[in-house]
Amino acid sequence: MQCSVYIATSTDGYIARKDGSIDWLHNAGNSQADMGNNADMGFADYISSVDCLIMGRKCMEMIASMDLTAEQWPYGDTRIIVLSNTLKLPASNLQDKVEMYSGDLTTLVALLESEGHQHAYIDGGTTIQSFLNLKLINEITITRAPVILGEGIALFGKTSADIKLVEASAVAFANDFVQVNYKVSY
Amino acid sequence: MQCSVYIATSTDGYIARKDGSIDWLHNAGNSQADMGNNADMGFADYISSVDCLIMGRKCMEMIASMDLTAEQWPYGDTRIIVLSNTLKLPASNLQDKVEMYSGDLTTLVALLESEGHQHAYIDGGTTIQSFLNLKLINEITITRAPVILGEGIALFGKTSADIKLVEASAVAFANDFVQVNYKVSY
Repeated sequence: MQCSVYIATSTDGYIARKDGSIDWLHNAGNSQADMGNNADMGFADYISSVDCLIMGRKCMEMIASMDLTAEQWPYGDTRIIVLSNTLKLPASNLQDKVEMYSGDLTTLVALLESEGHQHAYIDGGTTIQSFLNLKLINEITITRAPVILGEGIALFGKTSADIKLVEASAVAFANDFVQVNYKVSY
Repeated sequence: MQCSVYIATSTDGYIARKDGSIDWLHNAGNSQADMGNNADMGFADYISSVDCLIMGRKCMEMIASMDLTAEQWPYGDTRIIVLSNTLKLPASNLQDKVEMYSGDLTTLVALLESEGHQHAYIDGGTTIQSFLNLKLINEITITRAPVILGEGIALFGKTSADIKLVEASAVAFANDFVQVNYKVSY
């Protein structure tokens, strides 16, 4: 099963401020820019390419806190698995949207694969780091907002070794966000 | 006077490993790629646009340790000012190449400007952070090597506030390095 990352960071590599807030992401860039056909910076195309989503607990709690309407729900009917070793139940407003998983990630990937899944969207800083260190991530798309935060929660953390990236591509959108895409070579 | 940054980092934003080494930078990317007219990823054009270089002590010591021949010297006859509050003299093999400065950076910029300088290259992590926090950097070019290091010396550090970037451009070179350029909007 292919596992990929599609995530936004600041230019200095943070996915959130220290308190978890992402106000800077919504305020960054030139909101008046004519984005042409790139209004969502590729998110819809990406989501349509995955058939399941694996996210961490904090990521679920962030989404739960938004209390999205059906119209606002960005993941369609994509199956969502939330990783948590402490929570047995989803957030109350996500009970029909997500399922919980506790345990080994390689086993989870094998399980999803055996159930016919072909491409998982891996989301959340800790989850991405765990998958990277298990050499399970095949592709990474980072959309960097044009702001330097100075501190926060980093996308990448310690790795067990250098991780080599290949097949780089990059685009600067009209709103000054820069999106890069790499395949991961272990 | 314009002050700009032209620096290489890993994809996770480090300019060196914790011990200062940059072996990963020389080994990163596809060295067999046909770089066409971009073999130096814009460095010669950049260097020809600056008329002085301000770097930190560690940056000087890194260059001194390379013990470059005249042919290898990458900065032409560009005036180089090394910042240090502790060292009064340059590294022994750089005595005819650099001058030392200790003191206020805003004063230094005014001094260089009064001497006719128009564009300074600001180099070294600590130096770049100091100039950014003094709102003295106008433009940033980051060339990201296609490797995740997991830890090291970060290009960016704590800032006194969010720093907004504008006029983004990006290019992925054939060797899988990605170069981004921004103007800084204070």
